[in-house]
Amino acid sequence: MSPTGETEVHHAWLPPVAWQPIGSRRTVVIGTGPLVDTVRNEVAQACARYGGDVSTGRPDAGASDLVLRTDPEAADGDGYELSRAAGTTTVRSAAPAGLLYGLFHVVRLGADAFGADFPARTESPAARRRMLDHWDNVAVHPVMGQVERGYAGGSLFWRDGALRDDLSRVHAYARLLAACGINAVAVNNVNVHAAEARLLTDRLADVAAIATVLRPYGIRVHLSVSFAAPMLTGGLPTADPADEGVRRWWRAATARVYAAIADFGGFVVKADSEGQPGPFGYGRSHADGANLLAAALEPFGGVVHWRAFVYNHHQDWRDRSTDRARAAYDHFVPLDGTFHANVVLQVKHGPIDFQPREPLSPVLAAMPATSLAIELQATQEYTGQQRHLCYLAPQWSELLRFPLTGRPVAELAGGGLVAVANAGDDPFWTGHPLAQANLYAFGRLAWDPGADPGALLDEWISLTFGPDDPALRATLHLMMDGSWRTYERYTAPLGVGFMVRPGDHYGPAVDGYEYSRWGTYHFADRDGVGVDRTRASGTAFTGQYPAPWSDVYESVWSCPDELLLFFHHVPYGHLLRSGSTVIQHIYDTHFAGAEQAEELEARWRAVPVGGLVTAALHARVRERLGEQVRSAREWRDQINAYFWRKSGVPDEHGRRVDGSAPAN
Amino acid sequence: MSPTGETEVHHAWLPPVAWQPIGSRRTVVIGTGPLVDTVRNEVAQACARYGGDVSTGRPDAGASDLVLRTDPEAADGDGYELSRAAGTTTVRSAAPAGLLYGLFHVVRLGADAFGADFPARTESPAARRRMLDHWDNVAVHPVMGQVERGYAGGSLFWRDGALRDDLSRVHAYARLLAACGINAVAVNNVNVHAAEARLLTDRLADVAAIATVLRPYGIRVHLSVSFAAPMLTGGLPTADPADEGVRRWWRAATARVYAAIADFGGFVVKADSEGQPGPFGYGRSHADGANLLAAALEPFGGVVHWRAFVYNHHQDWRDRSTDRARAAYDHFVPLDGTFHANVVLQVKHGPIDFQPREPLSPVLAAMPATSLAIELQATQEYTGQQRHLCYLAPQWSELLRFPLTGRPVAELAGGGLVAVANAGDDPFWTGHPLAQANLYAFGRLAWDPGADPGALLDEWISLTFGPDDPALRATLHLMMDGSWRTYERYTAPLGVGFMVRPGDHYGPAVDGYEYSRWGTYHFADRDGVGVDRTRASGTAFTGQYPAPWSDVYESVWSCPDELLLFFHHVPYGHLLRSGSTVIQHIYDTHFAGAEQAEELEARWRAVPVGGLVTAALHARVRERLGEQVRSAREWRDQINAYFWRKSGVPDEHGRRVDGSAPAN
Repeated sequence: MSPTGETEVHHAWLPPVAWQPIGSRRTVVIGTGPLVDTVRNEVAQACARYGGDVSTGRPDAGASDLVLRTDPEAADGDGYELSRAAGTTTVRSAAPAGLLYGLFHVVRLGADAFGADFPARTESPAARRRMLDHWDNVAVHPVMGQVERGYAGGSLFWRDGALRDDLSRVHAYARLLAACGINAVAVNNVNVHAAEARLLTDRLADVAAIATVLRPYGIRVHLSVSFAAPMLTGGLPTADPADEGVRRWWRAATARVYAAIADFGGFVVKADSEGQPGPFGYGRSHADGANLLAAALEPFGGVVHWRAFVYNHHQDWRDRSTDRARAAYDHFVPLDGTFHANVVLQVKHGPIDFQPREPLSPVLAAMPATSLAIELQATQEYTGQQRHLCYLAPQWSELLRFPLTGRPVAELAGGGLVAVANAGDDPFWTGHPLAQANLYAFGRLAWDPGADPGALLDEWISLTFGPDDPALRATLHLMMDGSWRTYERYTAPLGVGFMVRPGDHYGPAVDGYEYSRWGTYHFADRDGVGVDRTRASGTAFTGQYPAPWSDVYESVWSCPDELLLFFHHVPYGHLLRSGSTVIQHIYDTHFAGAEQAEELEARWRAVPVGGLVTAALHARVRERLGEQVRSAREWRDQINAYFWRKSGVPDEHGRRVDGSAPAN
Repeated sequence: MSPTGETEVHHAWLPPVAWQPIGSRRTVVIGTGPLVDTVRNEVAQACARYGGDVSTGRPDAGASDLVLRTDPEAADGDGYELSRAAGTTTVRSAAPAGLLYGLFHVVRLGADAFGADFPARTESPAARRRMLDHWDNVAVHPVMGQVERGYAGGSLFWRDGALRDDLSRVHAYARLLAACGINAVAVNNVNVHAAEARLLTDRLADVAAIATVLRPYGIRVHLSVSFAAPMLTGGLPTADPADEGVRRWWRAATARVYAAIADFGGFVVKADSEGQPGPFGYGRSHADGANLLAAALEPFGGVVHWRAFVYNHHQDWRDRSTDRARAAYDHFVPLDGTFHANVVLQVKHGPIDFQPREPLSPVLAAMPATSLAIELQATQEYTGQQRHLCYLAPQWSELLRFPLTGRPVAELAGGGLVAVANAGDDPFWTGHPLAQANLYAFGRLAWDPGADPGALLDEWISLTFGPDDPALRATLHLMMDGSWRTYERYTAPLGVGFMVRPGDHYGPAVDGYEYSRWGTYHFADRDGVGVDRTRASGTAFTGQYPAPWSDVYESVWSCPDELLLFFHHVPYGHLLRSGSTVIQHIYDTHFAGAEQAEELEARWRAVPVGGLVTAALHARVRERLGEQVRSAREWRDQINAYFWRKSGVPDEHGRRVDGSAPAN
C-alpha cells in the first residue's frame, strides 16, 4: 500500500512479508511444467526480496531448507505430502499442481515451516473442483450494473462491455485464489444477457485471454452460457435439446472453445429460472437440457454445472399450496440417475436463497446417483453486502458439517463447492476489507470442509496482518468469530428469512416481499408468524428430508429455535426451547444485535493504525462499521416496531419497541 | 384511424366529423394576425372536406352561417362573445385568441350552433394561464425513462436526448390543447438533469422550435430550469441569489431566451425538493430564490412558477414530530407578501402528493398576498397510471369548488391551474384511450372551474365519438362518472394514502412506504390505523386550516369519513359517520371496488366496434380494463389480508379476507 492507500491494490493474504520465511532461505524446486515454473518463480521472487536462493538441481543433503519436488510416489492431483526432517522441509507431489498448493501451505506455516521437525502428512482436497462463480456482466446491466449483486466495485475481468485491457489484477487474483486452494472460476454472470452470450462464440478470445492469465496458477476458466445460445448467437430457430441441429451446434461451439482453450473447465447454466430460457420451453426435462451440454463437453473432459435454482417466480401470494422451498427437490429429485456423468447439479445450500439462516437443501440428501455441488454466496447479497462485517465461515462450516444423512453434508457434494464471488476491482478486493476473509475461508473450506472457522481466521490474520500481533488477532476474533450470528440477530428472526428491501436486498422491509410473486413470505399476523411447512398442516416440505430431520423439523418442539419460523407458524407467545417467547426473543435479539454492532465499531476504533493495518484500510473498515451500526439500528427498530404493532406485546424489560422515537 | 388503427394517430376530440357543421356552411372570418390565420385555416380545412366556404370580406346579411370577427368592443384576451340571431352565429372577440377559443366553442356545439337562435353570451376564462407541465426528459433517464411518471409512451417533444425531427404531432397536440382551452406548456421535467439544464442555454433552439409549432394555437412555451443553472451551464462558482454575478447571469440568460422566443412564458422551478438544488443551499429563502428569477423575467412579462412542493425527503420514520403534510405551509406561508408580482407559487392540490383522496392544501387559504396556482396531476401517477380507468374531473371539480375560505378554492388560484400532463407519443395520446377525457376536462376546468364534470364528459363524448350514439354515451357515463370513486374504493382506505409500491407507485404495497424516509405513513397496528394530525394529540396539521375546517378536521366526529385516516388514528371498531366500522368499511369498499372494476370490463365488452369506436381503440380499452380488474383484485386482497392480519376482525358477511386463497 502507498501511504494514502488509495490507488494501490491491497495485498490481501499475500503481503510480501508472508514470503520472508521462504525468501530468506535456500530452496530447491524439482520438476517440470508450467505450474512448477510458477512455483519456482514465486520462490525466486521471494528470494530476490529477502536474500535466499532457489535452485533447480538435486538437493545437497543438509544444504536446503526447503525442497519442492514432483515425485510419482507422492500424492496425486492437487494433493501433496509435507514433512520436515533433519532441517529440511519437503513438499512432494505426483503432479505440479500439488507442488503449488504445497508451496502455499509452507507460506501459511510461515516460520513454523522451518522450526521443529514434523512427520510427513498428506494433504489432498475434499473436492476436485473448488470454484468461484463471478456474477460479472460484460456490458453494464441497466439495473444490476457491471456486477450483479457485486459490492466490491467493478469486475476484475470486464469493463463497459469489453475485456479489460490490463489483466494484471487478474494475475494477482489468480495468485490469491491458488493460495487458498481455488481452481475454477466462471467468468460471467449466470444471468446471461446479449453481450455475454457471445463469449461462447465470437468473443471467445476474451475468455481465452483470461484463461491464459489464470492457467499458471492452476485455475480453469468456466463460462456461463445461455440455454438459448443456439438461437441467440447461432441463428437457429430453436434451442430444443431433442433437435439434432441444436446438438450439432453445441458440439461445434464446444469444440471451438476447446480449440481456443484446451483446459477449459466447462459451462455453468441457469435455466428456466427467473426469466432465463431452458428446456421447459420445449417440453423437455432438465436432464435433457443438462445432458445436451454434457454430451458436447464430454469428449474434452469438461463439465456442465447445472443450477438447481428453479422455481416459480410468478407465484400468487394468495396461493398457500405452492412453496418455493419445495421447488428444487420437486424439479430435480425425480431426475436422479438420469444425468450424464459430467453433469454437476449445483444446489444452493438452502432451499430458498442464501438467507443468513436456512436449513440445508433436502436435495443434497436425495440424489445419490447425481454429482452434486453446493453453492454458497461469498458476495453477501443477504448478509450485509460487504457493508456489514459478516464472517461467513462459521455458517458454511455449520452447513458443511451438518449430518443430513448421518455423515457431513460435504461428503454428499462430490461435485465440489462453489461460491458466488465477492471480489471486484476495489483496491481492497472486497468492499469491506475484512470480507477478504470470506473468500479465503471459502477456498480453504472447499479444500477441507472440516476445517475449523476459527483456525481459518487465524491463518488469514497471520497472512494478512502478520503473525506477531496478538492484540489485533484477539480483536479480530472478537469481532469476526460471532459476526454472522450478530447479523442474524438484528435481521429477520428465527429463520423466517427475506425481510429485505425488494430489489437491492439491503436493509429491512418486513413486508417487502410479503405480497409479492417471489414466494418468500412470513405470514405474520396479529397472533403469530412463520411458515407452516409441516406435513400435518402445511406445505409438507418437511417430508423432503430424510429421517430423523423430517420428524425433527416437523415437530414444533424438536425443531431448532433458529429455524422455527422457517418450518412453523406459531403464536407470539410460543415458548422457544431457549425458554423465551417468540416475541420477546425478537425484541431481545434485535436489541442485542444492534448493540453488538456498536461494539464492533468500538473495538475497531481501539485498533491502532500501523504495520499492515494501513490508514486506508483502517478508515475503510471504520466507514463500513459506521454504516453497519446505522443499518443495524434501522433493522432493530423496524423489526421491533413491526412486531410490536402486530402483536401489541410490550417488551419485558420496558424498552421502547413502538418505533415512536429513535432509541438512539 | 386506419382499419387496423395501429400506426395512425388517434384524432382524440377533434375527429374530422366534428368539423362537419362548420365545414358544410358558409363562414366569414374577419381580423388579422397569426391566430386569426389559424382560425381561417381551420375553417378552410373543414370546408375543403365538407363543401362549405370561408371568406374574409364583410359578411353579407343573411348570407353567412358563421361570422368570426375581431371587434374592439367585445370581450378581451381569451374571452369572446357568442350569439346566434337571424340564422347567423357570431363570435366576437377583441383579441384574436378569443376568436380561436370561440371557434372551438362552435365546434363543441356542433349542429346546435346552427339551430335555434340564442342570445349573446360572453365567455372568458377564470384563469389567464391554463397550463400543462410535461415531466418529459430530453435524455432518457436511467430510472424514470423518457417521461417521468409517463404512461403514454415517449415524449411528444424529445427522443433519446434530442428534439424530435418531426414535430407534426406537436402541431396536432397544439390544436387539441387549444380546443380545450390550454394556453401554456412547460416542455420539460421539473426534475432538471444535465441535458435538460442546457435547454436554457445552448439548446435554446430546441425550445424555440417547439414554440414555433405551439404559437399558432395561442400556446406559450415555459421551461423548467435548474436553480443551479448558473453553475451547471454558466460555469459560475455559486447560484446564490444574493450574488450579483448570479443575478446578472439570470438576466442575461433570460434576455437570450426572449431574443429567441419573444412570447416565452416563463420558468418552472422545483427547488430544494427531492434532491433538486435551491436557495436553502445558500441560506436564502424561497422568496429570495423565486424573486431572483422573477426579476430576470419581469422586463419581458414572463412569470416564474415556483413549486411549493418542498419537504424533508430524508425523514426518520421513527420521528413522530415531523409531518410532511405541514411542510408546504411551514415553508411558504411566512413568506406571503414577499414574492414579486410575477411569481406564481404552484401548490399541489393536497398537502402530500396527488393521492386519490387528500384534503386541500391549507396553503391555498393562507397566502392572500401571493399569486397561487393549483397543480393537479393528469398523468395518474397515483390513480392507476392510465391502466386503470379513472376520470378525474369529479375529483378536480370537488377540489376546485371546495369552500375552503367560504368561496370556491378556484377563486384563490389567481395564478391559474396547472396539470402534470398525461399525453405522449402513444397512438391514442394517452395510454388509456378514455384517459383523453382527463386532459380535455382539465383544460375545460381551467377555463371554467365551475363546469360540471358530467357535462364535460358529455362534451368529450360528443366530440370524440360523435353526438349521436346514446347507448355509447350512457355506457361511458356509467363507466366514467364514478370511476375515480371506484379507484378510491379498492386502494388505500379513508384518505390514508400511499399504500403503493415504492418506486413505480403502481399496485399495492401497504407497508411499502411505512418505514421509509418519505414521510408517508399510515401507522397501522393491531388496534387501529391512521395519522393523528390533530392539535389535541397529533402533529397539529389541522391548525393550518381556516375556520371552520380547522375544527371540522380536528374532531373525529365531524371529520368527513373519506378523510378520517388522513387526520386521525382510530381503532378498527371506530364507527364511521356512515354507520360502518372502519374495518368493515375497508372490507366492504374493497370488495365493492374490485367488483365495480369487473363491471367496467363487462360494460365495455358490450360496446360494439363501429363508427368512431375503432377495433384498435376497443381492443386497447379492453386490454386496459383487463389489467384494471387484475390489479383491483390484487389491491382488494392485499389490503383486506393486511388489515385482517392486523385486526383479526372477520368480515361481517363471511367473505374470505385472509388472503389464504384467491377469491377469484
